[in-house]
Amino acid sequence: MSQAAPHGGKTRSFFAWGNVEDALSAEERTAVDQGLSALPVWDPSPLGPAPKAADYALTKPRVSPPAALAETLTADPEERLRHSRGRSYEDLALMLMREGGQAPDYVAYPETEAEISALFDWAASAKVALVPYGGGSSVCGGVDTGVGDGYDGVVSLDMTRFNRILEVDRTSRAARMQGGLLGPELEAGLRPHGLTLRYFPQSFEFSTLGGWIATRGGGHYATLYTHIDDFVESVRMVTPEGPWESRRLPGSGAGPSPDRLALGSEGVFGVITEAWMRLQDRPSHRGSASALFKDMPAAGRAARALAQSGLFPTNCRVLDPGEARFNGVGDGASAVLILGFESADHPVDAWLARGLEILDDHGGAYDKAAAQRSLAKGSTENRSGAAGQWRDSFVRAPYLRDHVVQRGLILDTFETAIPWDRFEQFYHDVVAETADVIKRVTGVAADVTCRLTHVYPDGAAPYFTYMAHGSNSGDFASCRAKWREIKAETNAIVVRHGGTVTHHHAVGRDHRSGYEAQTPPLYRDALRAVKQRVDPGAVLNPGVLIDAQAAMRVAP
Amino acid sequence: MSQAAPHGGKTRSFFAWGNVEDALSAEERTAVDQGLSALPVWDPSPLGPAPKAADYALTKPRVSPPAALAETLTADPEERLRHSRGRSYEDLALMLMREGGQAPDYVAYPETEAEISALFDWAASAKVALVPYGGGSSVCGGVDTGVGDGYDGVVSLDMTRFNRILEVDRTSRAARMQGGLLGPELEAGLRPHGLTLRYFPQSFEFSTLGGWIATRGGGHYATLYTHIDDFVESVRMVTPEGPWESRRLPGSGAGPSPDRLALGSEGVFGVITEAWMRLQDRPSHRGSASALFKDMPAAGRAARALAQSGLFPTNCRVLDPGEARFNGVGDGASAVLILGFESADHPVDAWLARGLEILDDHGGAYDKAAAQRSLAKGSTENRSGAAGQWRDSFVRAPYLRDHVVQRGLILDTFETAIPWDRFEQFYHDVVAETADVIKRVTGVAADVTCRLTHVYPDGAAPYFTYMAHGSNSGDFASCRAKWREIKAETNAIVVRHGGTVTHHHAVGRDHRSGYEAQTPPLYRDALRAVKQRVDPGAVLNPGVLIDAQAAMRVAP
Repeated sequence: MSQAAPHGGKTRSFFAWGNVEDALSAEERTAVDQGLSALPVWDPSPLGPAPKAADYALTKPRVSPPAALAETLTADPEERLRHSRGRSYEDLALMLMREGGQAPDYVAYPETEAEISALFDWAASAKVALVPYGGGSSVCGGVDTGVGDGYDGVVSLDMTRFNRILEVDRTSRAARMQGGLLGPELEAGLRPHGLTLRYFPQSFEFSTLGGWIATRGGGHYATLYTHIDDFVESVRMVTPEGPWESRRLPGSGAGPSPDRLALGSEGVFGVITEAWMRLQDRPSHRGSASALFKDMPAAGRAARALAQSGLFPTNCRVLDPGEARFNGVGDGASAVLILGFESADHPVDAWLARGLEILDDHGGAYDKAAAQRSLAKGSTENRSGAAGQWRDSFVRAPYLRDHVVQRGLILDTFETAIPWDRFEQFYHDVVAETADVIKRVTGVAADVTCRLTHVYPDGAAPYFTYMAHGSNSGDFASCRAKWREIKAETNAIVVRHGGTVTHHHAVGRDHRSGYEAQTPPLYRDALRAVKQRVDPGAVLNPGVLIDAQAAMRVAP
Repeated sequence: MSQAAPHGGKTRSFFAWGNVEDALSAEERTAVDQGLSALPVWDPSPLGPAPKAADYALTKPRVSPPAALAETLTADPEERLRHSRGRSYEDLALMLMREGGQAPDYVAYPETEAEISALFDWAASAKVALVPYGGGSSVCGGVDTGVGDGYDGVVSLDMTRFNRILEVDRTSRAARMQGGLLGPELEAGLRPHGLTLRYFPQSFEFSTLGGWIATRGGGHYATLYTHIDDFVESVRMVTPEGPWESRRLPGSGAGPSPDRLALGSEGVFGVITEAWMRLQDRPSHRGSASALFKDMPAAGRAARALAQSGLFPTNCRVLDPGEARFNGVGDGASAVLILGFESADHPVDAWLARGLEILDDHGGAYDKAAAQRSLAKGSTENRSGAAGQWRDSFVRAPYLRDHVVQRGLILDTFETAIPWDRFEQFYHDVVAETADVIKRVTGVAADVTCRLTHVYPDGAAPYFTYMAHGSNSGDFASCRAKWREIKAETNAIVVRHGGTVTHHHAVGRDHRSGYEAQTPPLYRDALRAVKQRVDPGAVLNPGVLIDAQAAMRVAP
């Protein structure tokens, strides 16, 4: 069978983030290196040769699929490598180590639910694990095919052939769409109808509708519609024991929500083949401002007032001084709050005016004239300035990370959520304790920065970034060992101080220690009881979320 | 032990809605009778004597609790009768029939989780069913103690001693509260903190926080915050196998939400002892208008535009012409849309102005000057007019129903939700088919009216009311039999046309036929797997939601 179609004429990297063509250019790499050269952690590894598929030792497929599945499966080496893991720091380190041992025996590209069911039947009878795969952008070990002992083979179940929009209901602003639609395909299909899902995670280009639902992903917008959860009108999930489809309803009180058991199930119960999703009109009115605050707690108090105001800003993103400096917004010494309102229905003047009053009340400094100009129809003010710079660096960040990692640094993020009453102390403690861990593990002091990606009336979602020293000699195994130690500690730090181990990246394998610390054992037992009912052969995504397999990655 | 404390100095009726003192006065009864006298269904039964506890044949308690539970349990006859069922049409009919045979053997008033656990242990060993009971306002058989065969006894587990506010977090606007708090107790406890849950179901006075969560109740407000679901920050549920407590978080993406399995569990998994709830500031700015439309579809289109506008009106209630006439609002020939905005943060002038434009765009007729006056601080415009009349009749409606039922009429409601694209046809079909059923079952034509209680961007929640002829001789057994036939049909009609069998009244026993028609069998099996894990002795609320017991009430 043929390989997956390239993305807009571009080629997906089999080992790194996104498209081969979008990796940093030589000029960009030099600029990044120069920008980092003053940092204590900058002690770069020489850039080695780029990985090639031939670098990896792949086992021969260990199992033989039935003839009926021959058209659905491929054993192409590059396909197997690309599907062997997601795109976390550790995934990249393993690829740079040329670790291919855990690659799946096959990649399946089913096009019908009948083919998925046939895969389920074969998997149960042949002791084959199936790992559902959307866009492969997991940063928590969610699509890892290193499933450990107990299986005779592993297949990555790529859903991207399920990429059709099946029905559009303009009246209700909803559409029935297949689970394998990548972000750009989905939006392109809705555009002729004047509709949009308006769900833009950082992984937008490289993640799918089904993946967003399975992981309870979080989009770009800061309030109200934060997670994918609230856009789901109904879900169709195919399990080894048959379909699980909820009725399309705007609201219901009939028992526990069936959708909410599919949301966050991370592929351990079934594969999401379709969903009816709530859509929005494309916004035509905008207004925005960027304000400086003396420090993160002060900016956080302004964000809290905005989140509790009932104004529901589209953007209400807060960067601490280090984060602002790294992203080239603000004056580098202040925290920055980026506030934006958007509407498809009405001018947002009154909304922005009240938002600015709240910024004033909390000591925010911003350009009043620029805020006023942002309200003009077609204003470029919303596309430039701090908001625009932020957006550009947001989309490019994973490519930048890939380069920095190849230079031997450990660049990673972790995200959480915490009620407002604990936020200031939490911010202080998590930054300080993470910095201590990094110093201890790597021997070199490192900056830990923070932004708020989403704000709620009752709390915030802080997102932490750190860049640590790994190796100056291309020793990615050593980098990876350090990362694992730091990761285990940050899971524990976040949960110990009252946060959730993940706000929108999902649990996967990498967050299981934190997940187990924060959830009641009885609840996880209840999920296992559901798993037993819908996947009695335990073929789906072993090791992830609640599955009995290894609690972190299987070491190669 | 002593009986439950009276409500604000008033006495709860053991057989009818609410407080004895709040039943219709003689003058009100006469006025209602006169108001109905022109209707074809008006062929009244003589008013019989009010039920007295001594009218009912109660069995002696069939089981003997251990001494340690003696203080927790009461066998007081009036307590047993009051807890024998909820407050649906059928419940009242059964009480008027003097049916006491299904009364619980005891009523338990636990004050600690240890007492609840002791009840669980005894129930499992003695084959006693436990029926969790909050305020007892269920209108779907959710607290019915007629559990059928297979149990040696039944205990109603009244949670109203769990009525404390345990912690208030002003910063995050949240509070940890016990599950047995009745609406007025909860709001009174929050008032000194300047906070409110702003959750006002029609049953507000006679229902509890834990009951709202267990049934996924719906409040008074029309958009955004419709169900209790979104106010839940975390839940503590005690099950026979131990506690199930989620972490307090403003948002999370860590696996399927544990709270969403407790929400809607209707007492079959455990008893909700505590929850952290998201609160709001008390509103200080208001604006409102009432508009007439030529018919329900036209008013529905305006409501849809409002729901899709992003303005998030606090009220956006739509009454069809019959409903408006019955509630004394509008001109009796038009549909009425009641629009209201409220905010604790900002004047709502811009919100109301845009809302009025939308009413204009859809042909709504309203009093512009009154709408303008409603914006003035402390305006009485919001408390009088159609909105005020509506509110008064809303709270009094159940008392009015009780009188009408005693006059031999069958007065009932059913509620659902449907996407906008199907709404107009759905409204037409459900009204017409329900009218046909009533004519066939009772022999007398009856009006079926409709209002929209909540509106969503993708659909509406229609709420239907009918008044049918039952008996002109006080034959409540005959009334009940007719009601059961109508109920089974309306369940089927609503679900056949794409709706949910309940938007916020819950499934209980009465909606199970519809629930089973609308949910995938595999999903209900998954819930049963959870039930088996947390309540292996099957002591909790047999017959409700997914339990294997009788799918409708056990006939006496």
